[in-house]
Amino acid sequence: LMMPGRTSALTDNIDVMVMLPHNNTYLFSYQRVSPAIEYAIKTLSSGEFAGLRFNVQYENSACGMDALYALVDKQKDERPDLVLGPVCEYSAASVVRVASHWNIPVISAGALATGFSFKTPEYSHITRIAPTYLKMAETFQAMFGRFGWRTASLIYDDDKDERNCYFTIEGVYTVLSEYYKTTDYAVLNSQEDRVDADEIIASVYGSEVVIMCAKADTVRDLMLAAHRRKLTSGSHIFFNIELFNSSSYGDGSWRRGDKYDNEAKAAYSFLNTVTLLRSTKPEFENFSTEMKKSLKQSNIPVCERCSAVNMFMEGFHDALILYAIALREVKSIGLTKKNGLQITHSMWNRTFEGIAGQVSLDAKGDRNGDFSVVRMTDPEAGTHETVMSYFGTNGSFQIMPGFKREWFTLRTSPEPPHPKHSDPSSG
Amino acid sequence: LMMPGRTSALTDNIDVMVMLPHNNTYLFSYQRVSPAIEYAIKTLSSGEFAGLRFNVQYENSACGMDALYALVDKQKDERPDLVLGPVCEYSAASVVRVASHWNIPVISAGALATGFSFKTPEYSHITRIAPTYLKMAETFQAMFGRFGWRTASLIYDDDKDERNCYFTIEGVYTVLSEYYKTTDYAVLNSQEDRVDADEIIASVYGSEVVIMCAKADTVRDLMLAAHRRKLTSGSHIFFNIELFNSSSYGDGSWRRGDKYDNEAKAAYSFLNTVTLLRSTKPEFENFSTEMKKSLKQSNIPVCERCSAVNMFMEGFHDALILYAIALREVKSIGLTKKNGLQITHSMWNRTFEGIAGQVSLDAKGDRNGDFSVVRMTDPEAGTHETVMSYFGTNGSFQIMPGFKREWFTLRTSPEPPHPKHSDPSSG
Repeated sequence: LMMPGRTSALTDNIDVMVMLPHNNTYLFSYQRVSPAIEYAIKTLSSGEFAGLRFNVQYENSACGMDALYALVDKQKDERPDLVLGPVCEYSAASVVRVASHWNIPVISAGALATGFSFKTPEYSHITRIAPTYLKMAETFQAMFGRFGWRTASLIYDDDKDERNCYFTIEGVYTVLSEYYKTTDYAVLNSQEDRVDADEIIASVYGSEVVIMCAKADTVRDLMLAAHRRKLTSGSHIFFNIELFNSSSYGDGSWRRGDKYDNEAKAAYSFLNTVTLLRSTKPEFENFSTEMKKSLKQSNIPVCERCSAVNMFMEGFHDALILYAIALREVKSIGLTKKNGLQITHSMWNRTFEGIAGQVSLDAKGDRNGDFSVVRMTDPEAGTHETVMSYFGTNGSFQIMPGFKREWFTLRTSPEPPHPKHSDPSSG
Repeated sequence: LMMPGRTSALTDNIDVMVMLPHNNTYLFSYQRVSPAIEYAIKTLSSGEFAGLRFNVQYENSACGMDALYALVDKQKDERPDLVLGPVCEYSAASVVRVASHWNIPVISAGALATGFSFKTPEYSHITRIAPTYLKMAETFQAMFGRFGWRTASLIYDDDKDERNCYFTIEGVYTVLSEYYKTTDYAVLNSQEDRVDADEIIASVYGSEVVIMCAKADTVRDLMLAAHRRKLTSGSHIFFNIELFNSSSYGDGSWRRGDKYDNEAKAAYSFLNTVTLLRSTKPEFENFSTEMKKSLKQSNIPVCERCSAVNMFMEGFHDALILYAIALREVKSIGLTKKNGLQITHSMWNRTFEGIAGQVSLDAKGDRNGDFSVVRMTDPEAGTHETVMSYFGTNGSFQIMPGFKREWFTLRTSPEPPHPKHSDPSSG
């Protein structure tokens, strides 16, 4: 075994295959994410990683099997050293299998489904650089423990296509069903059927906590139905999960300009939204500015006041940084870029500085997540703010000034059809 | 375009990749099926296809992703001309995708799930040489129409692994839900949970027809529970689906040597079993004899009175015959073995002589199926026989001498919890 000195310069050519959809309706489209990857390459090109040369090939994953086909079409000597993406679950599943079989590390800011948590045998080479659905679900587990809730009803919109809400709720179900026996669920498909919000809400009577993942309009219908049935008056706690698309929740999300706006505003004063906690640091500003420039060049509308950077852009940026750190480590012990499993394991159980702050990977290569609970704090104006945050790395809560304990306290027991012993002692 | 004369000899080397599990617990293991494939090659080596030389490579699919890995490891110039198998659904899904992408025909006596019926875009090159679950489900559709039933309750054992019963019932659900509105279902997992047969049977009250796919012991528990609740006395019709493993149903399937045997025998006198209709012709005898010889050489126990040949052995035998016919056709119009899609389409919408009788493929490349309904005809002895058969090619029934109309006639309406308008006019 050759053992080069640890001080030898880190030089190498790294072939990177990036698998993202070219369809711009995705938050993780090629047009949005590639500037972040190029930004990371530029950052790496000066300083300690200057000897690394990244040859990036962008493939259109089409959020489907095209990603797999692009990979398997590579002859042995053409195979990449690193795969970034895919984000879509089904697309990622097949790519990660083949890449793992070929000993190629994969880093994705997607592939968030619970199935990828089980790294052996098929998903051995995937590192997930964005907080997964299971990590998000820990927020609920922690709240259930803190506030003494025992039963949940899960409502989700399953489009039978990309199934984001299905996989989101799968994470919640996986965590909660381990600790709380009664976990009911209701499935709807807003693309195929008319959603009967009243019928769905009728099915949650027996559960203390109602957790929804659905389109904004569906959530509004469900909250209106719950409010009319007076389920918002202390017998139930309502949550909406909205991880990525910050524009679809928060201030004014109840507003449609229809005759139900006032009623919806009142209903939404009982709704909690779980979302990603996004933090920034001074260096982030330059990144954000550059990203806005690039997005504008791609004719992607950029909002003025808000950040144009999403979790996927951050994640794929940080993916390259993490890879460079891990590659340096394995090369320092005499291995090469072809030792895919060792590089992968070197990325796991590691904390490093990402573009927006510290990034912490757990021992199985999944990023620990921080999440916020957002709530309407001004029922008159109908405006929202973060009332508490959950930090996955140490499992702690941060309670914000606007927080009120009563919002998370059951005042009465849920009613039949499944009557339960009432014990609101957690109040 | 070169147009060779139609009388030119058909000569070619065909690389065949066979994907079967080496684990002998499968009815379609390498040890069972490879003799049938070799038998077909021997048959083809004399006569009109004598110019074809088949180079067969057997890969262990392991009923999992190993099949995919074996395929994608092939460099461009090593890729096979034909893939036979895999049988297991998840294994087949990824192989068929990549083979289709590479323009390689796939023929399987498995891949029976409904998903493979939709040939575009991902499964364009799969030909299914054994009757699929959807074809089996047509038997139910035809019976519902003939006997005037309207509602069904589907009970299945989902092992979350190969999921044969899940996919079986999926076919029934797909067909029935298109024609009959009320289709309930109950899932159990006999590998993980204790099966509460009484609780499951309590949920079928509102349905006229109960259709089960489960292990023999579970079916017995369910029938005992139904019999004790008197659901066998004319308010419900009971079906069990048992396609492949002929030893697990029929005479004596109710017998366990426990104290419930007599009760079970009485309960089973109300149970109908849907199974594959197997037919043979004189030429089949030699095949069967040869197969028994090969199985004995592999130390596979061979029953004396029954046939050692199963649907998978027949199917993979016939697959090679069908491929040879299709290859001849495309070569006669100047194409080659590399025109995978044309060869595939040439196999579709075709009827030919298989080893056990006529094989008829529909226009989408799925084999039409014939199925039998087996019923206990001697309640004293507890013995069974086929009481009717369904022929998929023309959608007709054949009623056997032992058939009794009353077995398939609802005498009373199903009871609450979901009361329904009673209209047993079909009697």
